[in-house]
Amino acid sequence: MTVEPRKYYRVRTELDRMVSALDEGDAVPPERALAEQFSVARETVRQALQDLLVEGRIERRGRRTVVSAPKLVQPLSLRSYTEGAKEHGRVPGRILVTFEEIVGDQPMCDALGIAPGSPVMHLERVLLADGVKLGLESTYLAQARFGDFAQTFDPQTSLYAAIRAKGVEFASAEERIETALASPREADLLETTTLMPMMLLRRRSLDTDGMPIEVVRSLYRGDRVAFAAVLHS
Amino acid sequence: MTVEPRKYYRVRTELDRMVSALDEGDAVPPERALAEQFSVARETVRQALQDLLVEGRIERRGRRTVVSAPKLVQPLSLRSYTEGAKEHGRVPGRILVTFEEIVGDQPMCDALGIAPGSPVMHLERVLLADGVKLGLESTYLAQARFGDFAQTFDPQTSLYAAIRAKGVEFASAEERIETALASPREADLLETTTLMPMMLLRRRSLDTDGMPIEVVRSLYRGDRVAFAAVLHS
Repeated sequence: MTVEPRKYYRVRTELDRMVSALDEGDAVPPERALAEQFSVARETVRQALQDLLVEGRIERRGRRTVVSAPKLVQPLSLRSYTEGAKEHGRVPGRILVTFEEIVGDQPMCDALGIAPGSPVMHLERVLLADGVKLGLESTYLAQARFGDFAQTFDPQTSLYAAIRAKGVEFASAEERIETALASPREADLLETTTLMPMMLLRRRSLDTDGMPIEVVRSLYRGDRVAFAAVLHS
Repeated sequence: MTVEPRKYYRVRTELDRMVSALDEGDAVPPERALAEQFSVARETVRQALQDLLVEGRIERRGRRTVVSAPKLVQPLSLRSYTEGAKEHGRVPGRILVTFEEIVGDQPMCDALGIAPGSPVMHLERVLLADGVKLGLESTYLAQARFGDFAQTFDPQTSLYAAIRAKGVEFASAEERIETALASPREADLLETTTLMPMMLLRRRSLDTDGMPIEVVRSLYRGDRVAFAAVLHS
């Protein structure tokens, strides 16, 4: 950072207070006005606004900067994205990007419990809440087990509901969460930039017989989604 | 990104392959040599290297760039940081930054189940694994319940062990995980920059009587730590 830390802190603190006092959708004053108000260089204001943007507290709408809606808090649970969004009063949606059959490589087939080189279905969808793009989800399923989905599954609906409708019951999942950057393609699909920090979730779900159901790789916009867990001893 | 996406992808794929074939600590060739090898502009190589850095696959050691150790995978569980690190064969460590008594504000006292304005102990430590700085943890405890720690607790040891030694049993915790940027102070303490994506964890733990034990705010370096959970139906 090229700006002077002490000035940055002061501006950041003032902006935090200002944003907290505003309502969702309210306009944030332009950079020039804020620089004058705080008597600092525009570069200092720009840095503080950029950090609020990455944290999801403000967002750009065309040429305006406004206060964001709170992050969607997605529970870490075996429930589907659909259920998680609904629980928070958001309307879930999905946009189909890819629905294809691929040849699974060794690690993928091992994870799915099928022979290397077996056919695998790949379903890639953009996840939305109230029409806002939150994440990009790639699900991999054994063709031998779920191949009928190519004909029967509507990609705009809940995949978990379709899996359960076949009598398959989710029993457990291993999940790994880390930060990642979007590739240019992923950033385009999520209408963000390759600079925005993302959360990368990898999940493998097992059924009640311990058989793998799915392997999932999801990329969530760090400015729009948080994850919550309740832990028990 | 100012580099041409197609060239970026090719270079990124080649670099991924190169890094995968190397061992931890092996040197990555310099930018200039890679640009020549791939016949692209240095800017393209720089972007790809920067992304590998943020993902924690490579790291700078002085003027050299080397292949990183795998991320520490920290379990989301009621066990302590100490136990999590040991489980992965790492030697945990802590550096004391702050150990102070503060006056709790309303949200903090509500979270700790004490009257607003009550004294609160604040313990801030840098978390290490094998001597490498991974995170910065701030723990808040009710003074009335844990005030004796000011005399008895060694900040280089496990706080959870000290809490349990008082006969307090952890029963559950609510956790929230999201991305964040470090402040300049936090980045300095973690020897990184304000540009590195971080994982922000907030935790509130309850004992077997449902009484709050602690409120924790931890910032983990996104290039060095991942979180894992096992979910059950």
